[in-house]
Amino acid sequence: MISERSEKIFKAAGADKLIVTAPDLRFYLTGFESSDGMVVVDGNGTAFYTDARYLEAANAALNGSGIAVKERPQGGYSTLADGTQKLAVALSKITAVEYLDLKGRAGEIVDCTPAFTEAMGVKEECEIEAIKRACEITDRAFEDMLSAFKEGMTENDAAAELEYRMRKFGASGTSFDTIMAFGEGSSVPHHETGSRKLRFGDIILVDFGCKFGGYCSDCTRTFLFGDDKKHEEFKKAYEKVLEAHMAVKREVTSGMTGSEADAVARNVLKEAGLDKYFTHSLGHGIGINIHEFPWLAPGKNNVLKDGMVFSDEPGVYFEGDFGIRIEDSVTLKDGKVVSLTDSNKQLIIL
Amino acid sequence: MISERSEKIFKAAGADKLIVTAPDLRFYLTGFESSDGMVVVDGNGTAFYTDARYLEAANAALNGSGIAVKERPQGGYSTLADGTQKLAVALSKITAVEYLDLKGRAGEIVDCTPAFTEAMGVKEECEIEAIKRACEITDRAFEDMLSAFKEGMTENDAAAELEYRMRKFGASGTSFDTIMAFGEGSSVPHHETGSRKLRFGDIILVDFGCKFGGYCSDCTRTFLFGDDKKHEEFKKAYEKVLEAHMAVKREVTSGMTGSEADAVARNVLKEAGLDKYFTHSLGHGIGINIHEFPWLAPGKNNVLKDGMVFSDEPGVYFEGDFGIRIEDSVTLKDGKVVSLTDSNKQLIIL
Repeated sequence: MISERSEKIFKAAGADKLIVTAPDLRFYLTGFESSDGMVVVDGNGTAFYTDARYLEAANAALNGSGIAVKERPQGGYSTLADGTQKLAVALSKITAVEYLDLKGRAGEIVDCTPAFTEAMGVKEECEIEAIKRACEITDRAFEDMLSAFKEGMTENDAAAELEYRMRKFGASGTSFDTIMAFGEGSSVPHHETGSRKLRFGDIILVDFGCKFGGYCSDCTRTFLFGDDKKHEEFKKAYEKVLEAHMAVKREVTSGMTGSEADAVARNVLKEAGLDKYFTHSLGHGIGINIHEFPWLAPGKNNVLKDGMVFSDEPGVYFEGDFGIRIEDSVTLKDGKVVSLTDSNKQLIIL
Repeated sequence: MISERSEKIFKAAGADKLIVTAPDLRFYLTGFESSDGMVVVDGNGTAFYTDARYLEAANAALNGSGIAVKERPQGGYSTLADGTQKLAVALSKITAVEYLDLKGRAGEIVDCTPAFTEAMGVKEECEIEAIKRACEITDRAFEDMLSAFKEGMTENDAAAELEYRMRKFGASGTSFDTIMAFGEGSSVPHHETGSRKLRFGDIILVDFGCKFGGYCSDCTRTFLFGDDKKHEEFKKAYEKVLEAHMAVKREVTSGMTGSEADAVARNVLKEAGLDKYFTHSLGHGIGINIHEFPWLAPGKNNVLKDGMVFSDEPGVYFEGDFGIRIEDSVTLKDGKVVSLTDSNKQLIIL
């Protein structure tokens, strides 16, 4: 039952009352999406307070969930904290203004961010199912899109076509702004999709994802729009990035740290003399948020566990020239990496 | 020059240094979109710090802007606050964790939220131009969409088709999750778009918007998919909601408060005995964020000024039966309301 999530966090926080305002944490605790509301957990159970716009929908969605639905108090949500001795709040998810207000209302404030991070980092079966569905839609849209790339279309046009396919195949939306980079735009890791037109021989780098059931997918592919025979350097580097990407899938196991996982990819690129062009980290957790715990990066000691979902995305970038990134959303199951997005990663030449 | 924005906020804050981390505020100060970075303003001018992923793009975008681009310090962005006597921060836009960290680094922290609210509330000409473009795309997509509604299509399908049109007509994405409600779904002000299929005689309520150049549009239309002659109550209520919507356009002027503007619409509905079904406020500011200052709601004393952009969106909701909302994005110019979205609001029967 979904109310077990809030009970678990409440217990871990060791407070008299837990209050939650951040939309992602509220969705995690209730399974109900809204732009407004507060979850309150105390010895009496879990209640979701929201305003008139959401009451009807919340009542329908949370009927039988073990979570009571109540209307926002006249004096505002923060009055629900009044007089609490020990109040648990996710300090990383409330604003300084909210914090200063709550400080005056409760005896003591304790941070429940670690309890949320721990709980949300390891996905339940139903969460993995939602991410899988998002990943399947992502793969299907990519495969369907390959025949839609046409000379002269803009990056914006291509992004629109890809997003349309994800939406039509069942996504509720994108999980972030699609990065569609043609040619030299690929050398910018976070290129802004624009009006550059597709030309024969262009590299195409597309970083995209969608949402299904409130959960995200994340995927990047790099390929060629025709082969103008000027891409020898690109092809060599592509093989190395793919090798780094696949080494992660083969060698990363539950129990490794984020830093150790990152090193698996970084070492492959180092042997090829390409590590100085790998200017970002290997990956990030994926869930309700597109970027969340755990972190796969140099210096990150968080331990990877079964049930975690994260990106495997090594990349190299040659400023002003070209870039390559190959990314899948993956999970750890029985100690091993399982790929959730999994469309073709052998170099595609359209 | 865009660096004048940061100088103005810095001056208004009256501090030794201003630091800004929130993505929307960073975009306002630099015109550059990124998921990571910090803007620092002091007596020496404005600098934008960001990580390796964004350096190339930031250098290109901010060249000649009067804003220096620098790489993220090894120790993290917050070290840039070290030793500041009086540090200005937007307390409504940083987390409690960031606040507690900064408190230990600076002598005194002052809140520059009011300076941002004031500055961002009144749009510059170039901001209004971006919003206008977003609104034109919104109108065009709606008009083009009318012939695409087909019996049996799901709410998700219809939302996908509408979003595709906005994207193809130049939008960088949606400004919020499209609300597409068929039939009884329209009675929920924030209906979750789902798999309900379109049937002859259905009410369609669609609340949608897009982004252009970093700025949002917001629009709602309610209409009929064929007339099954069972909609007498709906048609009567529609006329009244439209009357309330148009009264705002005619009667709201610069110098009125948000509360007074809200009352213009509420009074029209009150005369028709419908005010108890108008369960939300009249409107909200629109800009880089889809919901921002100013607020047009009972009890809100913020004064409406020329250059502000906000929504005019009265609505009535009959739980479990049907709902109606008619919304345009508007601005105040020479004291009067000018409509920015402006597609047909006479009752459409497809």
